[in-house]
Amino acid sequence: MKVLIVGSVALDTIKTPFGKVKDILGGSAVYSSTSASNFAPVNLVAVVGEDFPKKHIEFLMAKGINLKGMEIVKNGKTFRWEGEYGWDFADPKTLATHLNVFASFDPVIPAQYRDSEFLFLANIDPVIQTKVLSQVNKPKLILCDTMNYWISSKRAELIKLLKKVDIFLLNESEAKQLSGEAGVVKAVRAIFKMGAKRLIVKKGEHGAMLFSKAHVFCAPAYLLESVYDPTGAGDTFAGGFIGYLAKCGKVTEENLRRAIIYGNIMATFAVEDFSLRRLAKVTKKDIEKRFDEYKKLTCF
Amino acid sequence: MKVLIVGSVALDTIKTPFGKVKDILGGSAVYSSTSASNFAPVNLVAVVGEDFPKKHIEFLMAKGINLKGMEIVKNGKTFRWEGEYGWDFADPKTLATHLNVFASFDPVIPAQYRDSEFLFLANIDPVIQTKVLSQVNKPKLILCDTMNYWISSKRAELIKLLKKVDIFLLNESEAKQLSGEAGVVKAVRAIFKMGAKRLIVKKGEHGAMLFSKAHVFCAPAYLLESVYDPTGAGDTFAGGFIGYLAKCGKVTEENLRRAIIYGNIMATFAVEDFSLRRLAKVTKKDIEKRFDEYKKLTCF
Repeated sequence: MKVLIVGSVALDTIKTPFGKVKDILGGSAVYSSTSASNFAPVNLVAVVGEDFPKKHIEFLMAKGINLKGMEIVKNGKTFRWEGEYGWDFADPKTLATHLNVFASFDPVIPAQYRDSEFLFLANIDPVIQTKVLSQVNKPKLILCDTMNYWISSKRAELIKLLKKVDIFLLNESEAKQLSGEAGVVKAVRAIFKMGAKRLIVKKGEHGAMLFSKAHVFCAPAYLLESVYDPTGAGDTFAGGFIGYLAKCGKVTEENLRRAIIYGNIMATFAVEDFSLRRLAKVTKKDIEKRFDEYKKLTCF
Repeated sequence: MKVLIVGSVALDTIKTPFGKVKDILGGSAVYSSTSASNFAPVNLVAVVGEDFPKKHIEFLMAKGINLKGMEIVKNGKTFRWEGEYGWDFADPKTLATHLNVFASFDPVIPAQYRDSEFLFLANIDPVIQTKVLSQVNKPKLILCDTMNYWISSKRAELIKLLKKVDIFLLNESEAKQLSGEAGVVKAVRAIFKMGAKRLIVKKGEHGAMLFSKAHVFCAPAYLLESVYDPTGAGDTFAGGFIGYLAKCGKVTEENLRRAIIYGNIMATFAVEDFSLRRLAKVTKKDIEKRFDEYKKLTCF
């Protein structure tokens, strides 16, 4: 089944203790689409400027990603983000954000996309995410991401939105911020009270947790020798998660759990090099090898 | 099979955001012995002063813990520790340490203890831990704990000791401190190079990892609604771990992995109330119930 992804396409300038890269391919929609494309066909909705390099378009198309919904704005400039990571690879310091064409992003879902069964609303303004929802037929599953900025600046809109989606995606500190609770379990309970159906709480190097009202699933992260650039890890996780579910076609507790593992595994490829350098080259064999290693790492 | 535990018996004064308690039962040997006693017979070696309350001795004996090796120093005062936790329940702030009789602790292993098959060297001076080793016949398994203080003040002695034990127990920051590496995987590799055979890296609320040269096992923590007092969690983990292995009688990869889970589970009981209030009342049924819940929480 098909995955529809709506989010950002960016040119990132990133500094880590290992080096610096300028204007490389990035953005939530790029990481998640590339990740999902390993499992299922992807329909992408995004916006770029005329300066967006042709080679990136060719790369995404080679991955089988449908770009019918990627608008190229004449004379426009692509969204740019500049950030820096310290040795702990925690939240990066944002050095510059140039929204450019992304400032007036008003996604239009092409008619041929409307029957996509799996929808990922990557992290953008919840008002825009809500507008996307009004343009699609009821998908089998809606996954929605957000960030601390929207939790504080568009709280009411976000809470209205989270009732309409099937799985709401947050990291641990965002869950605490949204709920006002200091512990994860209490935070999750509070967000369920706001109307959420299912929650994924990402814990970075400590893995991820999936909460529904009847079940909890805890998955430790795959063990990595070293992290090179964590940009896009969360989006790559989301892409692997929803891509695997689309491949299965059915949303069952078992498939959801395995989707979390595949999401974790895809994220490990994203952080092993700058931009999509490693992720772009991942094969099905690489993925299955890590899945088997992950099983050995966690079974008892 | 029997477990021999050498460590501290203390009277703790603890402040957490939930309340304060004064001179309550604590110490590494107490938490670990109580935890291990749920699985196997325990022989305890420690020292207390004449002020040590009789009710605590009765409690330990009721748990089937052999106190032949617990010296009561005439006119001596029991080791006291005073600490305070903030809302994050990270490393406590030590407000006072009165070593008292513990300052001259020179453990003598009673003859009847010497054939204990499983030995836990709880966190004390590595010089004393080494002296204990010279007093026992070769046990089936030696588990050894330490802390940041010894890593910096008795580094050479500690590195000499870690070659002699079967499993060396550290938390994440201690592993980084000992190795000088920023990442866990690299830290573990460096400690293996120092001569360690197996390592357990504790990650607090994120679980624990077991490293041998051929295998890695990652176990997320059991999900707790709230933490009340984390004092003794690591020692309770160690006691559950070695107690379960002693019950099995054989050190296999499978038993080691299950021992990590039992250690995790025992630690959850320790943190749910001050001192040993909850841990003291744990039944075999409580433990198996959590083990089953843990399986559901992690299977995929």
